[in-house]
Amino acid sequence: MARISNEQLAHLPPDAAIQFDDRGYLRHFLTINGVPREALIQILDTAESFMTFGEREIKKVPLLRGKTVVNLFFEASTRTRTTFELAAKRLSADVINMNAARMSTSKGETILDTVKTLEAMHTDLFVVRDSASGASHLIASHLPEHVRVINAGDGRHAHPTQAMLDMYTIRQKKGGFEGLKVAIIGDILHSRVARSQIHALATLGVDEIRVIGPRTLIPTEIEAMGVTVTSNMMEGLSDIDVVMMLRLQRERMDGQLVPSEQEYFNRYGLTEEKLKAADNEAIVMHPGPINRGLEISSSVADGERSVILSQVTNGIAVRMSIMATLMGGTEGSR
Amino acid sequence: MARISNEQLAHLPPDAAIQFDDRGYLRHFLTINGVPREALIQILDTAESFMTFGEREIKKVPLLRGKTVVNLFFEASTRTRTTFELAAKRLSADVINMNAARMSTSKGETILDTVKTLEAMHTDLFVVRDSASGASHLIASHLPEHVRVINAGDGRHAHPTQAMLDMYTIRQKKGGFEGLKVAIIGDILHSRVARSQIHALATLGVDEIRVIGPRTLIPTEIEAMGVTVTSNMMEGLSDIDVVMMLRLQRERMDGQLVPSEQEYFNRYGLTEEKLKAADNEAIVMHPGPINRGLEISSSVADGERSVILSQVTNGIAVRMSIMATLMGGTEGSR
Amino acid sequence: MARISNEQLAHLPPDAAIQFDDRGYLRHFLTINGVPREALIQILDTAESFMTFGEREIKKVPLLRGKTVVNLFFEASTRTRTTFELAAKRLSADVINMNAARMSTSKGETILDTVKTLEAMHTDLFVVRDSASGASHLIASHLPEHVRVINAGDGRHAHPTQAMLDMYTIRQKKGGFEGLKVAIIGDILHSRVARSQIHALATLGVDEIRVIGPRTLIPTEIEAMGVTVTSNMMEGLSDIDVVMMLRLQRERMDGQLVPSEQEYFNRYGLTEEKLKAADNEAIVMHPGPINRGLEISSSVADGERSVILSQVTNGIAVRMSIMATLMGGTEGSR
Repeated sequence: MARISNEQLAHLPPDAAIQFDDRGYLRHFLTINGVPREALIQILDTAESFMTFGEREIKKVPLLRGKTVVNLFFEASTRTRTTFELAAKRLSADVINMNAARMSTSKGETILDTVKTLEAMHTDLFVVRDSASGASHLIASHLPEHVRVINAGDGRHAHPTQAMLDMYTIRQKKGGFEGLKVAIIGDILHSRVARSQIHALATLGVDEIRVIGPRTLIPTEIEAMGVTVTSNMMEGLSDIDVVMMLRLQRERMDGQLVPSEQEYFNRYGLTEEKLKAADNEAIVMHPGPINRGLEISSSVADGERSVILSQVTNGIAVRMSIMATLMGGTEGSR
Repeated sequence: MARISNEQLAHLPPDAAIQFDDRGYLRHFLTINGVPREALIQILDTAESFMTFGEREIKKVPLLRGKTVVNLFFEASTRTRTTFELAAKRLSADVINMNAARMSTSKGETILDTVKTLEAMHTDLFVVRDSASGASHLIASHLPEHVRVINAGDGRHAHPTQAMLDMYTIRQKKGGFEGLKVAIIGDILHSRVARSQIHALATLGVDEIRVIGPRTLIPTEIEAMGVTVTSNMMEGLSDIDVVMMLRLQRERMDGQLVPSEQEYFNRYGLTEEKLKAADNEAIVMHPGPINRGLEISSSVADGERSVILSQVTNGIAVRMSIMATLMGGTEGSR
Repeated sequence: MARISNEQLAHLPPDAAIQFDDRGYLRHFLTINGVPREALIQILDTAESFMTFGEREIKKVPLLRGKTVVNLFFEASTRTRTTFELAAKRLSADVINMNAARMSTSKGETILDTVKTLEAMHTDLFVVRDSASGASHLIASHLPEHVRVINAGDGRHAHPTQAMLDMYTIRQKKGGFEGLKVAIIGDILHSRVARSQIHALATLGVDEIRVIGPRTLIPTEIEAMGVTVTSNMMEGLSDIDVVMMLRLQRERMDGQLVPSEQEYFNRYGLTEEKLKAADNEAIVMHPGPINRGLEISSSVADGERSVILSQVTNGIAVRMSIMATLMGGTEGSR
């Protein structure tokens, strides 16, 4: 099990440091930012050992038997919730799904009261999604030491399990990260996925990260993360090995940030034509669900360059890996 | 395991043929239409072996352990969803419930994207309900070969598991199908249940099928299915052995198709009085939930001729049987 | 296993008598009223044996393996439903969650039809919550002998599992019941929790039960239950060993029963200052979720006298105990 050194830990920003226990092992998975390369690699390696499970007759291992996993979703997402539910059940955990919008937070109880109440029921792992950046950090900082938290998306901040399944898919299809040119395309401004992807790609050492989108949807400070920025799609795609599309929220389409769906598609929608600018062997990724004809054409989404369904398959193994990695620490198995 | 011959397969309509794999075994259960008698009998026989389970101390068998069943309900139905959930859990499967109305189909993703995404998570069996006729066929035709689909009701088209539990109940109470006179009563026009019942009864060889209801609620082409039609309740019930009531949707009660609830009950509501026209030993069936005082009186629904609760009990065993039959093919156990 | 004698049974009111089978064992848990002291003590003792489970690596026992528990909630309550779901899963039962408001009761089927339908699926235990007093009694009286019912709150009538976890917590923190002075504070009028607490405290033999609240929120007949009533908070708290706060429903805050939130807090909100009137070692309880700044201050809720989170933890063990006690009778294990 990879661990972070005291030296490394001392240099981490507080929101990264909280993820490690005092021996340097990962206890929460809230952000990729600050997690050392070896820890990321180990998550990918462990995921690989879970990959064959999906094809076995009996898709279960007893690693989390008798453990209780709570899916605490303050923001609805059936798809993401399902991936965590499946991952936990295949590890033999008991799963409680809470649509927390309907819960007692609406009755004057704070989110922390809700979480502490659930923890008092001896739950072991919280998977948290919230529309507020920092929600899972807040929760993690108020729980006792043996309880784990996974960030399943918080505001515009981070979506680290999505980024890890993306990294798994890149390594699976490209053999590694060295020398790769990667483009992230779309609404960077509102995207927690993009932030986590950039941290992961940088840590794992790709050659170049390009960010492509309309100026209105690219945050001004993004170049400080070590990426190249362009609003020119063809220029940005040139020689790219990995094309990472982002989902465009239709609520951005009100004319303020994006002129119209048609114009957005014309300029930034990924088509067979535009894809020719990329490397011959480029792969196309998307976190899903896709907006056909908005950020991606159907022929690309369903085409031979697309690895979108592989991402979904890999997502189960990667989430099993992250859960097993975090929970390993409670079993004295290290 | 019963199988269909190449000869039989060649003569099936396409929506029936898709249900069989290339060796002639059932792989989906979408419609009764075209399924040969032996396959239906085998489903009933297998269900019989599951009947004692409900009364055992431990109501579980490990037949589907490690398999993932997805209840994909685009149309809400807590009752039907619960029967499939219980059947799957008693076979030891993991069950994911998806109320797909709340899912990503509302975000611009197509139903097929949703299904393919779920399939990429290595799910094994989809139980599909949709308000559109043909939805489960569409889904089945786009899935890889090893994934199974059960139609839990699609539009006005079919509800084959309901029809099979009805057949089980008839055989249980009457000893077989030969020589039986069966009446199906109510809103035939909108009823997927009636269509599946007629196919099943005809295949299993009852003596006579009568369809009873107001002219406005009987489709014109129904006689082509080999049934007798009447709008006269007493005439239709004469000498009948099995009375199959249909549920009347209250939204039909707007005066266009049915004059009023009271008048409907007077003419077609099943009462003790009207039931006297049927055979002395006639049984009364209803798919539930019942509308007391609309299509059936409380005294008949709760009376000694009623087998409505037996239908519910049998429904679990029949659904276990269908799931086990379809999944059997993935285990090389044939 | 404690049992009630024929003599005791003959003297019980009907709604208490229905809870016992003909050998005098508990089969339902609907109300504390009329349950003999020994039976309550045994539930607490059994709960104690489940307390260590929450801290074990594998938090499961196979006591209810293969049994089906239905959470039948006609009134939404994510928190309470979760406690029963967790308790049942840790006993290895299969759990079906039904939000019955969305169910067929809205389609003209009666509650009893719904329950009988579920029972016909061979379910073993119903956990029922309803806004109508007596709902779980009604259901219990219409089910066959081998099916069990737990009341998870019915109207203003009873919430016996909440009262039992409160009793467990008192015994845990105070060593027993003898000699204790207990205050129940808040909206007694609408509280099913208060009624069950009073029955339990009286049966288990505390020294004194005081009821504190505005006159408008105290039912006139309450003194007949053997309690002292006061509207003076400081007087009521004097020398108290156990402070049991009730949750104030914000919908009572319309000015008719309570003048304003601020004035309610000033008079009846539990603060550090008011708590000084109680015994030095007094404990503070609340069924949750708490309204901070309405019936209790944050500093008391989070303070060292508060045992609110212990109540939550104990609630799982107590509900496991009650489920195991009721189901024990179906296994011939007595």
